[in-house]
Amino acid sequence: MKKIGNILIVDPIKGEFVGNVLVDGGRIESVIPKNSDVYKYIAMPGFIDLHTHGCIGKDTMRLSAEDLEGWEKFLYSQGVTAFLPTTVSAKKEDMLRVSKFVDEYVHERAYTSVYGIHYEGPYINIEKKGAQNSDMIRAATTEEIREVISSVVKLITMAPEVEGFYDVLTVLKENKTVVSLGHTNAGFKDMRRAFLYGVNRITHFPNAIKGLHHRELGGVGAGLYLDFEIEMIVDGIHLAPEFVDMIYRIKGADKIMLITDSIDAAGLEDGKYNLGGLDVTVKNGKATLPDGTLAGSTLLFNKAIKNFKKFTNCSLRELAKVSSYNAARNLAIEDVARIEEGYKANIVLLDKELNVIRTYLNGETVYESN
Amino acid sequence: MKKIGNILIVDPIKGEFVGNVLVDGGRIESVIPKNSDVYKYIAMPGFIDLHTHGCIGKDTMRLSAEDLEGWEKFLYSQGVTAFLPTTVSAKKEDMLRVSKFVDEYVHERAYTSVYGIHYEGPYINIEKKGAQNSDMIRAATTEEIREVISSVVKLITMAPEVEGFYDVLTVLKENKTVVSLGHTNAGFKDMRRAFLYGVNRITHFPNAIKGLHHRELGGVGAGLYLDFEIEMIVDGIHLAPEFVDMIYRIKGADKIMLITDSIDAAGLEDGKYNLGGLDVTVKNGKATLPDGTLAGSTLLFNKAIKNFKKFTNCSLRELAKVSSYNAARNLAIEDVARIEEGYKANIVLLDKELNVIRTYLNGETVYESN
Repeated sequence: MKKIGNILIVDPIKGEFVGNVLVDGGRIESVIPKNSDVYKYIAMPGFIDLHTHGCIGKDTMRLSAEDLEGWEKFLYSQGVTAFLPTTVSAKKEDMLRVSKFVDEYVHERAYTSVYGIHYEGPYINIEKKGAQNSDMIRAATTEEIREVISSVVKLITMAPEVEGFYDVLTVLKENKTVVSLGHTNAGFKDMRRAFLYGVNRITHFPNAIKGLHHRELGGVGAGLYLDFEIEMIVDGIHLAPEFVDMIYRIKGADKIMLITDSIDAAGLEDGKYNLGGLDVTVKNGKATLPDGTLAGSTLLFNKAIKNFKKFTNCSLRELAKVSSYNAARNLAIEDVARIEEGYKANIVLLDKELNVIRTYLNGETVYESN
Repeated sequence: MKKIGNILIVDPIKGEFVGNVLVDGGRIESVIPKNSDVYKYIAMPGFIDLHTHGCIGKDTMRLSAEDLEGWEKFLYSQGVTAFLPTTVSAKKEDMLRVSKFVDEYVHERAYTSVYGIHYEGPYINIEKKGAQNSDMIRAATTEEIREVISSVVKLITMAPEVEGFYDVLTVLKENKTVVSLGHTNAGFKDMRRAFLYGVNRITHFPNAIKGLHHRELGGVGAGLYLDFEIEMIVDGIHLAPEFVDMIYRIKGADKIMLITDSIDAAGLEDGKYNLGGLDVTVKNGKATLPDGTLAGSTLLFNKAIKNFKKFTNCSLRELAKVSSYNAARNLAIEDVARIEEGYKANIVLLDKELNVIRTYLNGETVYESN
């Protein structure tokens, strides 16, 4: 039995209160409120990043087991206790290789923060490719989808206007792979059609989707008007701070999932990098292709939550929603993202400036700041 | 004493209830609720249109007293009991001529639905001129503003980035002329600056303003994010129905003012018309310049309220806000836009399909349908 004491407990449902948490067997044994306002650290459910291509030199497309272990470890320092290594548009063989590798990695371990794979592409619209490699982008076919998916593929970003989109939906649903709309030039009607087919998620909103117009609402209008859940890259570069605040006010904290969309350069110095075969330059933390297109981010999760809090002045309870609870609910990840009896003891302790102090995974300390 | 009985009274503040209204001396003497659900007609405060260039062949820029009387009379059939004839960008002499004419017209009458003048331009951005004549668009100067304004000028649409904008604000404020931002290419910061200077109104949002982008929110983002009150042309042409509904959900009924922006062709057949010296073609009710630019509307106010109700499914109480109450509050028009003791008896009776059945101005019946 382990006690995490004198903390401000931030549960996305019950809210914020001072108390102690007792941990046993990797789970939260009990949560004991205290009649006090005094606490040293803030305890939130461990963060979840459903969209990250890499960091500190690691990249989903070229991983060894050692790399992935290093990646996990680095993310503990960011408070992340679950994440999806995310691919870029690639050949079928490369998608299969990566997903098999991650599947084995997960099954070989008693516990890990690697939850599965996110395929970002290749079934997207070349007109909204962003930093995806044009040569790899293609239509979706039931045949190929059956080959590349497996239980480890938890999420796939697709454009609803690509050929074969509706054909493969059933297969993806059977596999319990969540579909997210992204890198799409679809107009409002096409976005709504996908929504009516049960696809209620948008990848890095509103980057690489069709803008708002008052006579054709586009993907941005669909995201605002319909009940989509949306990823957001809150690095202060992809989106203006006031844009983030506006979306928070319009959609509410229940519909937003913070992601990093980070690339291998995240956590490293400025310089030259590579993303899915494309040359990337990082300057002042901003990653771009030679033509200036943003190429993922160098955002770290701890910074993402600080930015969101700063830009929106949201409550800590809302911060718990956008940093873990919504993502867990979105992907139906069980028993996490609450600080509540019976849930997995994936917990991050933060100081009052929201710096990560300690991270617990299954009740074990996996990170401790100096 | 006149009794308007067995009606569903729709007051923007007190809400909807069945009852009788007693009218005396041009004012509402009393409002008597009845314990009943049975009513024949709906009674709402008379509608207010703060932005109309003309209708049935009348045009603000070329008016005779007979024309303006005809215009008033036609608008009674639309339930409108107050409106601002609206200019287009024009020479100083023409602005003066129109405003003097309207001033005299108003002062010669015991009561009229003409409330004053709305100057739309000429101090706007040529890049967002819409159907305004480029040759007339110019910078604002204190000297010229002092000449063209008077107590009859209730509203002026200006672009905050035009030279002289901030110079003339003080003069306009002294004159109690409300400033509205429009025909502007201003970015978010410039819109916010104007807002901080007390200019909290946007003309025919989001037509002829800078679009939303996630790194530069533009005029559209400013309108959504900041507490602006906005005009909207709800003809189903200028704005997609779902856009109107989205704005209603984001901004709420308290911040929206329905306007027609109608031109002389409104209420007439399709054909060739003229707006401020520009050729306009009306086809299926859609008014355009030769290059396809929308040139005002042929919308009638009764249709505007039906559309808004249909697009948003708002309550009748909210409909009273967007059709009169907000406009009255925005321009500080006294004693109107309520169905409440002491207010002017400017009332429109509608059937359950929202067709105008009867219009009262100062307690007198000024329109009655067959």
